[in-house]
Amino acid sequence: MPYVKIKIMEGRSIEKKQKMVEQVTNALVNSLDVKPDDVRIEILELREGTFAHAGKLASKKTE
Amino acid sequence: MPYVKIKIMEGRSIEKKQKMVEQVTNALVNSLDVKPDDVRIEILELREGTFAHAGKLASKKTE
Amino acid sequence: MPYVKIKIMEGRSIEKKQKMVEQVTNALVNSLDVKPDDVRIEILELREGTFAHAGKLASKKTE
Amino acid sequence: MPYVKIKIMEGRSIEKKQKMVEQVTNALVNSLDVKPDDVRIEILELREGTFAHAGKLASKKTE
Amino acid sequence: MPYVKIKIMEGRSIEKKQKMVEQVTNALVNSLDVKPDDVRIEILELREGTFAHAGKLASKKTE
Amino acid sequence: MPYVKIKIMEGRSIEKKQKMVEQVTNALVNSLDVKPDDVRIEILELREGTFAHAGKLASKKTE
Repeated sequence: MPYVKIKIMEGRSIEKKQKMVEQVTNALVNSLDVKPDDVRIEILELREGTFAHAGKLASKKTE
Repeated sequence: MPYVKIKIMEGRSIEKKQKMVEQVTNALVNSLDVKPDDVRIEILELREGTFAHAGKLASKKTE
Repeated sequence: MPYVKIKIMEGRSIEKKQKMVEQVTNALVNSLDVKPDDVRIEILELREGTFAHAGKLASKKTE
Repeated sequence: MPYVKIKIMEGRSIEKKQKMVEQVTNALVNSLDVKPDDVRIEILELREGTFAHAGKLASKKTE
Repeated sequence: MPYVKIKIMEGRSIEKKQKMVEQVTNALVNSLDVKPDDVRIEILELREGTFAHAGKLASKKTE
Repeated sequence: MPYVKIKIMEGRSIEKKQKMVEQVTNALVNSLDVKPDDVRIEILELREGTFAHAGKLASKKTE
């Protein structure tokens, strides 16, 4: 632990995702006094047509 | 909130999924006194070979 | 399938939760042409201090 | 119940996954005194670039 | 990986849960050729009134 | 989106958890170019006896 799951709409570059996991890992190391080796992050990318808000299926643009 | 995750076997049309999220959103609005804008729904479609029941991997037909 | 997980803030009565699962089950039966016996719903109630929005831990009132 | 979700890196054969669900179902039947028909298993295969450990996105090799 | 989440109704003894995680870990080690140290298992115990089947909230007895 | 779930062993103070959600929200805002209002974080605290590593149920100390 900690085990982190981050849900985002599909479409980000691998570089952006690498930057995200680095910054989120640092945020957890600083705030929870854990070691980087303790931190696991799973990225779940939701495809268009798989997420709805207020009864409407979201497309990438509206995300 | 509420945040809803609905797992179904892969294969439904986008129209069916849109109808589902509308009806589930209404069900939550009516039963929990929340606004449509409060409701988020994630649809997770399980591919064939990713779900087992009683020790057997389910295929679409048996779903 | 379908397997549904509904996350709500803690505090609703058992009657309200029973009404919710009935209406959500009906919504799925109508929209996905499945039988009530196919539908399983899990309710995850988030305690105060376990959900944050825009960097702030939500309390029940703001929910 | 029990409802089991198993996260593994992508790449195993269908035969290996079938062997896994059989053995995990037996493990649950033996340890929890439930029937095979009670056991549902979902397999979530994480694609390369969707899982990070210690701030680094894992690729299949390091899995 | 593998990361496993097992949902069961509340009420099993710690001994039964320890026996379960041992047997499920062995099942994964044998079927996926991974080491015990690779296997993490999370147990989510559902309280009465938090799981519904066919529109009815399940109580422990019916589990 | 993004919707984040952070699993940690039980026992951190509310101050530590508030510091964590602030820093993780900032990390996501900086790396994904999203607004704080877009970010929702759920904290799931695992009780002792609900998490196993290498076949052994973890207690708080070993976390």
